[in-house]
Amino acid sequence: MLAMALLSGAAYADDLRQTALEIFKPLPSTIPALKDNIVTPEKIELGKALFFDPRLSASGVFSCYSCHNLATGGDDNMETSVGHGWQKGPRNSPTVLNAVLNEAQFWDGRAEDLAAQAKGPIQAGVEMANTPDQVVATLNSMPAYVSQFKAAFPGDGDAVSFDNMAKAIEAFEATLITPAPFDAWLNGDDNALTQEAKAGLQLFIDKGCSACHSGVNVGGNGYYPFGLIEKPGSEILPAGDKGRFAVTETAGDEYVFRASPLRNIALTAPYFHSGKVWDLPVAVEIMAESQLGEALKPEETAQLVAFLGSLTGKQPEVTVPVLPAETPATPRPVTEIR
Amino acid sequence: MLAMALLSGAAYADDLRQTALEIFKPLPSTIPALKDNIVTPEKIELGKALFFDPRLSASGVFSCYSCHNLATGGDDNMETSVGHGWQKGPRNSPTVLNAVLNEAQFWDGRAEDLAAQAKGPIQAGVEMANTPDQVVATLNSMPAYVSQFKAAFPGDGDAVSFDNMAKAIEAFEATLITPAPFDAWLNGDDNALTQEAKAGLQLFIDKGCSACHSGVNVGGNGYYPFGLIEKPGSEILPAGDKGRFAVTETAGDEYVFRASPLRNIALTAPYFHSGKVWDLPVAVEIMAESQLGEALKPEETAQLVAFLGSLTGKQPEVTVPVLPAETPATPRPVTEIR
Repeated sequence: MLAMALLSGAAYADDLRQTALEIFKPLPSTIPALKDNIVTPEKIELGKALFFDPRLSASGVFSCYSCHNLATGGDDNMETSVGHGWQKGPRNSPTVLNAVLNEAQFWDGRAEDLAAQAKGPIQAGVEMANTPDQVVATLNSMPAYVSQFKAAFPGDGDAVSFDNMAKAIEAFEATLITPAPFDAWLNGDDNALTQEAKAGLQLFIDKGCSACHSGVNVGGNGYYPFGLIEKPGSEILPAGDKGRFAVTETAGDEYVFRASPLRNIALTAPYFHSGKVWDLPVAVEIMAESQLGEALKPEETAQLVAFLGSLTGKQPEVTVPVLPAETPATPRPVTEIR
Repeated sequence: MLAMALLSGAAYADDLRQTALEIFKPLPSTIPALKDNIVTPEKIELGKALFFDPRLSASGVFSCYSCHNLATGGDDNMETSVGHGWQKGPRNSPTVLNAVLNEAQFWDGRAEDLAAQAKGPIQAGVEMANTPDQVVATLNSMPAYVSQFKAAFPGDGDAVSFDNMAKAIEAFEATLITPAPFDAWLNGDDNALTQEAKAGLQLFIDKGCSACHSGVNVGGNGYYPFGLIEKPGSEILPAGDKGRFAVTETAGDEYVFRASPLRNIALTAPYFHSGKVWDLPVAVEIMAESQLGEALKPEETAQLVAFLGSLTGKQPEVTVPVLPAETPATPRPVTEIR
């Protein structure tokens, strides 16, 4: 009987894995290929420097790293980010970790890839408040940067450009992949998930969470209305932010957002585009009610949270780069609001 | 004759080194011992986490790293730092690199060591705007931090404290030592300095710069009036900031500041406590005029700048720490100005 029970346990594990592999995918073991952007060590190294460089902002205060902090899960743990002139951005900063594997970038998917995404905050008045011309002038003022651009973009007559800056940042960000216990389990290690996490995975599939949160990033690859069954309160879903509607101008896209990628979700509170919910169990319950019309039992919430915890991956080891020093030609920081 | 010339060159090098060793000291090859603070790997690791943690600020925006950026020479490349509520601090942020070897901390030496220093910006309303109680509540809310404090301060019944936070940060900062070509030369490597840098060193001694900028940090170990011979303009020396006078309340200490430590000076523009001078050659000329009453010839300035360049050291290799995630008990960021 013990043998039969063990056998049936193993068969169950195989069944669940089989089902899971039809819905999800483990992280790749190599850096993902990028569209029109060959990843080289030189480009990664340059991209890392740029990612950490506060001189890409008008004020000299903010870098990509400021709101995508690699010490805190690739985001900034704020409801919405604080930017130039202490202004607040309109939406919660998403994690940069594994973001390369999202179908599109931003909460509304308005950037098709990380290179396009990188250009946004640098120019946004409430974030880094800079201009492409000023960025290129800044980079050109430092000979070490010019050499790094030439090494990263050989044969490009105009190596130091805003486009190449974005491509280098994208190449660095493509390295920020965080394999998690869930990947180990998908790859065949039965012991990588606790019983509670496995029960949570089963619920995640059975209740319908995985209808939207699927694929390699357990989300990040489709657009769905927030409040499919029941709209959450305006505190959580502010009426003024109509999500993807601003991109497509299609009535059906009102309050539609990209399904959140759920990798490292336990590290990236607060939750939702509004950043109004700090507690992961509460966020799970809101999702169940608003998207599935389900009131979860406390043990179900706990199991789902245990599964989500198995998506917390090994954080990337990143050494702080040594950035080129300014020269007399480097534009000075401007802290005034334009 | 060639042999004689070589011999006399070598003798000259030995003479200059002998003179230099009476004034300066090479960096130590090990982490300096700290007063009342034993440095252990656990303490360094905890201190690194704290140094990078923006949750030590009320807003969640600023960490020690924000103004002491290890990617840009240990400072922030701003005239004066931007802090809580986009307020500006009163003085230029000094580099954290090798700061452990300064006689005292801050431009006016008001903190006796880096542990005392670390407590300042965290509480300053224009910087991180936090309180010790709030910091301790934040740290206690994250079990991983509590474990780290217990490992770093074994046998301390009250391991998670504001004092211990400061000691851990001090221990991490004590590792930020940057051996430079000047150290290699002091240690006997004749080829570590260019001829121009050696000529600059000779001038640095002969003109009298080394009367104030001496010791292991080429400064950082004494207090002198800015404008000993001739006060610079109020743009560079604002009348309202009387320097060490605020600490000692002694009339003779008006406009007295700690002599700047000059290691990595080529990486840490802008210069002076006011941060008003961006060009190192200009800063050198202002010093020569205001402190020594000397108008430098262009080639003298170039030689002095070459010597100062030899103080740019190997920047520390620091891996971004992985910080504990918040819990429901973690105080939320507060961006309002108190």
